Amino acid sequence: MPDLATVKAALAAQRIETPSWAYGNSGTRFKVFAQPGVPRTPREKLDDAARVHEHTGVAPTVALHIPWDRVDDYAALAAYARERGLGLGAINSNVFQDDDYKLGSVTNPDPAVRRKALGHLLECVDIMDATGSRDLKLWFSDGTNYPGQDDLHARQDRLAEALAAVYERLGDDQRMLLEYKFFEPAFYATDVPDWGTAYAHCLKLGPKAQVVVDTGHHAPGTNIEFIVALLLRERKLGGFDFNSRFYADDDLMVGAADPFQLFRIMYEVVRGGGLGDEIAFMLDQCHNIEAKIPAIIRSVMNVQEATAKALLVDAKALRDAQLAGDVLGANAVLMDAFNTDVRPLLAEVRTEAGLHPDPMAAYRASGWQEHIVADRVGGTQAGWGA
Amino acid sequence: MPDLATVKAALAAQRIETPSWAYGNSGTRFKVFAQPGVPRTPREKLDDAARVHEHTGVAPTVALHIPWDRVDDYAALAAYARERGLGLGAINSNVFQDDDYKLGSVTNPDPAVRRKALGHLLECVDIMDATGSRDLKLWFSDGTNYPGQDDLHARQDRLAEALAAVYERLGDDQRMLLEYKFFEPAFYATDVPDWGTAYAHCLKLGPKAQVVVDTGHHAPGTNIEFIVALLLRERKLGGFDFNSRFYADDDLMVGAADPFQLFRIMYEVVRGGGLGDEIAFMLDQCHNIEAKIPAIIRSVMNVQEATAKALLVDAKALRDAQLAGDVLGANAVLMDAFNTDVRPLLAEVRTEAGLHPDPMAAYRASGWQEHIVADRVGGTQAGWGA
Amino acid sequence: MPDLATVKAALAAQRIETPSWAYGNSGTRFKVFAQPGVPRTPREKLDDAARVHEHTGVAPTVALHIPWDRVDDYAALAAYARERGLGLGAINSNVFQDDDYKLGSVTNPDPAVRRKALGHLLECVDIMDATGSRDLKLWFSDGTNYPGQDDLHARQDRLAEALAAVYERLGDDQRMLLEYKFFEPAFYATDVPDWGTAYAHCLKLGPKAQVVVDTGHHAPGTNIEFIVALLLRERKLGGFDFNSRFYADDDLMVGAADPFQLFRIMYEVVRGGGLGDEIAFMLDQCHNIEAKIPAIIRSVMNVQEATAKALLVDAKALRDAQLAGDVLGANAVLMDAFNTDVRPLLAEVRTEAGLHPDPMAAYRASGWQEHIVADRVGGTQAGWGA
Amino acid sequence: MPDLATVKAALAAQRIETPSWAYGNSGTRFKVFAQPGVPRTPREKLDDAARVHEHTGVAPTVALHIPWDRVDDYAALAAYARERGLGLGAINSNVFQDDDYKLGSVTNPDPAVRRKALGHLLECVDIMDATGSRDLKLWFSDGTNYPGQDDLHARQDRLAEALAAVYERLGDDQRMLLEYKFFEPAFYATDVPDWGTAYAHCLKLGPKAQVVVDTGHHAPGTNIEFIVALLLRERKLGGFDFNSRFYADDDLMVGAADPFQLFRIMYEVVRGGGLGDEIAFMLDQCHNIEAKIPAIIRSVMNVQEATAKALLVDAKALRDAQLAGDVLGANAVLMDAFNTDVRPLLAEVRTEAGLHPDPMAAYRASGWQEHIVADRVGGTQAGWGA
Repeated sequence: MPDLATVKAALAAQRIETPSWAYGNSGTRFKVFAQPGVPRTPREKLDDAARVHEHTGVAPTVALHIPWDRVDDYAALAAYARERGLGLGAINSNVFQDDDYKLGSVTNPDPAVRRKALGHLLECVDIMDATGSRDLKLWFSDGTNYPGQDDLHARQDRLAEALAAVYERLGDDQRMLLEYKFFEPAFYATDVPDWGTAYAHCLKLGPKAQVVVDTGHHAPGTNIEFIVALLLRERKLGGFDFNSRFYADDDLMVGAADPFQLFRIMYEVVRGGGLGDEIAFMLDQCHNIEAKIPAIIRSVMNVQEATAKALLVDAKALRDAQLAGDVLGANAVLMDAFNTDVRPLLAEVRTEAGLHPDPMAAYRASGWQEHIVADRVGGTQAGWGA
Repeated sequence: MPDLATVKAALAAQRIETPSWAYGNSGTRFKVFAQPGVPRTPREKLDDAARVHEHTGVAPTVALHIPWDRVDDYAALAAYARERGLGLGAINSNVFQDDDYKLGSVTNPDPAVRRKALGHLLECVDIMDATGSRDLKLWFSDGTNYPGQDDLHARQDRLAEALAAVYERLGDDQRMLLEYKFFEPAFYATDVPDWGTAYAHCLKLGPKAQVVVDTGHHAPGTNIEFIVALLLRERKLGGFDFNSRFYADDDLMVGAADPFQLFRIMYEVVRGGGLGDEIAFMLDQCHNIEAKIPAIIRSVMNVQEATAKALLVDAKALRDAQLAGDVLGANAVLMDAFNTDVRPLLAEVRTEAGLHPDPMAAYRASGWQEHIVADRVGGTQAGWGA
Repeated sequence: MPDLATVKAALAAQRIETPSWAYGNSGTRFKVFAQPGVPRTPREKLDDAARVHEHTGVAPTVALHIPWDRVDDYAALAAYARERGLGLGAINSNVFQDDDYKLGSVTNPDPAVRRKALGHLLECVDIMDATGSRDLKLWFSDGTNYPGQDDLHARQDRLAEALAAVYERLGDDQRMLLEYKFFEPAFYATDVPDWGTAYAHCLKLGPKAQVVVDTGHHAPGTNIEFIVALLLRERKLGGFDFNSRFYADDDLMVGAADPFQLFRIMYEVVRGGGLGDEIAFMLDQCHNIEAKIPAIIRSVMNVQEATAKALLVDAKALRDAQLAGDVLGANAVLMDAFNTDVRPLLAEVRTEAGLHPDPMAAYRASGWQEHIVADRVGGTQAGWGA
Repeated sequence: MPDLATVKAALAAQRIETPSWAYGNSGTRFKVFAQPGVPRTPREKLDDAARVHEHTGVAPTVALHIPWDRVDDYAALAAYARERGLGLGAINSNVFQDDDYKLGSVTNPDPAVRRKALGHLLECVDIMDATGSRDLKLWFSDGTNYPGQDDLHARQDRLAEALAAVYERLGDDQRMLLEYKFFEPAFYATDVPDWGTAYAHCLKLGPKAQVVVDTGHHAPGTNIEFIVALLLRERKLGGFDFNSRFYADDDLMVGAADPFQLFRIMYEVVRGGGLGDEIAFMLDQCHNIEAKIPAIIRSVMNVQEATAKALLVDAKALRDAQLAGDVLGANAVLMDAFNTDVRPLLAEVRTEAGLHPDPMAAYRASGWQEHIVADRVGGTQAGWGA
């Protein structure tokens, strides 16, 4: 059996990054339902993120999205974060919301649009220099909606060219995390649709280019933990965008749709030596109808619970059963860990860290929600477009 | 072999309804790319629809969406349409874009919201009285995002209650078309997710309640033509919402993703005696990145081509091969029709009807696109929200 | 909170039927891996089933499959079962393994084949008379592999005719359970592919015709608990065939692929008043690579654990949160039950019933496996074909 | 517009390999329906393959499957083929049908089983030396059915080790084609589940290791032509296993389920310079219910028709529309080619090659089917197991 002190130490050391955009409004193509109290500025987003970290103790960094979080002085923003016990995390580029990008950004058939897109990516590295961020997260909505619309081969050439230019610009301690997505908003061919494509590009670029796995970005039935295991073995896993889904979208709170899958993913992380700083564990999700800060706290807790169960797997018993070809026995070792109720253990870890054992209750009791609802009146609420 | 004169007569008599919203702007949750020349009012949408009908000859009606097409005087709108050779078609209700509908409309746990939603549906029947529309098309975005969020059983009770109230209000020549959708915007459970649910409700309501098949609203791999055959056999197929998709969305031009599937669907329509007025053949799609009027013309032509191929199936040869258990022979009869290039035949049908044989070329030559781009400057372009 | 005594009583009263064929050899189209100790006769299957019931206490009946379990004297077989504390359960018909059925059984274009298939179904009712079985489970592999191969409409007519003849033959206390399956072995169109088709047929037949939900027989992403809730509301749910899967097959142990889904299904059963004798809870799965009897015991336990969690849902708290529109609160009530480790509770239930608290350990200790491996030498092992 | 002479020359030069096993019996896990006239020996399979080549003119090689086609003297078998105008093609290994392989072959936790499997693979290279085959096709059924059953990471290590040993053994003119498959017969994790995994291994092995794309081996919705384009760009596409499917299986005749998809695939082959000898175009399918030789002829014709349409795409018009960002125009160029009826063109190509213009009619008229049905009586029909 795993040593409990080691398990608790690993849980206490875990770090989960929350995304600035999850604090703002979001929705579907049908409707964005605004919520009272939503932040209106990057600083207000950091205020909310600070509460998540205060109650969970494991969410000390916040990912930014440019231009949604564009400010005049990023160093000042970083200082503002620091004063609240936070750091600024990954910089997320956005080359999908200008009218120019209708037919793509870095893969657009028009070289002028490609130049503009590349300029934005390089600007993001400038911002990283100012914020001290390590990771540039690249997600491209690029693709085509109709067969024949553009040349699949040429689009890969253009993509490779842009990635190389960004890679060249990275500092010694900076990385590029390349995200893949099965589809949406491109409805016929997406230029980086799967881990294989992201891997092939990263391999050519070099060690500072790594693949990021968004748990919602796969074809139906895809075994995500297999991909995690493979990328860890190849030393090409740079991070996670956590969320969950029942169908094709990537909006729901991580662990909400299939907690067993999240556990299996975290088991492969533990098995592959991926817990630690090398891999960025980030949330990337929307809270379209549920209260935002509590949803983010719940999501952080869901990752913690899956991690705790993964750490509780009896590695020796598992290996013995596997090598003996004992199918039911090996499966049972894994299921024993999954079936364990780890909530008391995590309450203990929190108490030992000086936190309230129940972050949800602590947040409810804090009065923060009532405060922001009363306080944040007027102005323009943050959302995907602002 | 089918008699060519009969085939041509059927093609000349075909009617395909275009949706007012396809002429306006649309997009994904990531971005709506506006297009120049897009209509700003319901009347401008009708102006565009008139061009589609002028060049194709088979698109004489336009479906409205309330409130997107709300006007003070629907009779005047109908007269405006009539003057352009058009009629007003199905009325599409919208109970998904008010803030009240965050947790549902007719299935909302809050009875006040349910009453409001029902009020809107009844208002739509009032509009039908004014426009002379036969069909009320009901699509509900209602559903839940998280397990436990609401009671699946109770939501069916509420749905049944609302549908019964609307059914009661229908006039003798009016029908209710109930649409199902696999998911989106609800991400856990949708209240009318499949044809079975729509069918079960329609059966209890009575003959004026019919199921509408949206070709984009099924689980991956679903055999849509089987559903069409079944509903025709049950006399419960009220109409189609045509579009196509490669993944989970329902946005692409009908026939663009899988022309063979569209052919099989139209074959079952022909086989089941469904060509004719009883069944409403409607487009329901978005043209996010392609030019709108040409895309609608192309879509109408795609339905025509699939219908032409379906009509060309040698019914006697097919039945003989089927009854003989000749798998390859029966399949070959169907494929012979599919592999036929029906574009010359349709050009002939158009010429005989006094139309240009190539509607796309005719539209390009008409100068309409340049006209609207120059003319429709200022004002607010129509879109999903207006 | 639910009353613990009530929960324990419900768990003690639960009944799960095991299938005779799960004790025999099975495999994929690539290979059947035989296992030592596998039964060679229906009686040996009952011997094994008796051990499952002995250790779990909740598996007192065994489903038969005709012709795989064909015997000369079914009354004698029933007596043999009775002596071992077992009853004979559902009779499963098989109209897919004769050469005649290449193009279908009751939907075959050849009337002689249809007559033969119907004869088999009626024979199964004769067997039910002899065994005292209540339920006839009908699964049809019927369908087509290629578009055009046969007429979808006509096949429904033939199916309806056969079902009506069987229904007519049923005794007062007998039922017909109609199973649907998304695909396989038919690869283009399956004649009963979804719950809607099964429901439509059962509705016309009458109250003795009920739908059976096989958890592995749905399109990717299908919300199975929604179907369960709907069929319960319509009083048309006759039973379950339990198993699980990650992809398209229905072979794995129930609860193995997605324990959260199984919990949600059992929650809807509890919510809809479906625990009890009206609904048949049956396993239908294959143990291709894992030891068979332990796999069946594990499967029974998985259903028990999901049921225990479902019973532990705080119904009042859930309803309050749902009616208040508290998305996160309602979800949390459900998740609290799911996250509970119910293994101690079930151990208690077993101990109170005079059983060993751990059925897997009890079976291992019993020596039965060693006994059958040593004893069952020679003869022909049971499998899908014998 | 493409030059017609060039198109015809390309079609006349096309080569499609047929698989020996498609001539034998096959089926699903439920039933193998035997057909009269099926070959009993490798030589009889070659006899049938010779007829396919005789009537189509483009199927001069036959893939072998070891041990299904094991003979004492492979050189003699090659000579037998040569006398009939055929060559022996790819050698397909089989490490999935021995009882030892229950938990895997080259990735089995038991080193003795791994050694045995590797031995078989090396034996296949010996056979290639004797037959003069260029390609060793490796498909591994290896994987696990239950989470935890074995270590995903370790299985990749074992796989890499076996592949390296085989690669080492390859002659200068020999290649290894590594096939991936989404799932089946492994139902939880497959060791080579996607093109990315195959690509990563092949990349490390070297230029003689290439990926083979089986058109039936992808997750639902996967854009296969994208993978083809990508692998061609990476010079890592070694060949195709052609077949088609509506659901999860890979059994139907290529082009039968989605002829538009096959066209798009062949378009990317043409676009990427992949027509020619470098890439092996192979059928890999089963004819479970349809007559085998005619089904193979039809499949060859389907590939020819898709190729013809791909060759007819107006490359210049397409590129112009693509670079101009003309979505509908570019799509129309592709669709014009797809909508063309190429059957007359292919009839011409055949006539010019001295063949009957209609291979199906020619085969029917040849009397071969009647001959083999009468002649091949007694003995054991070939199938997947023999």
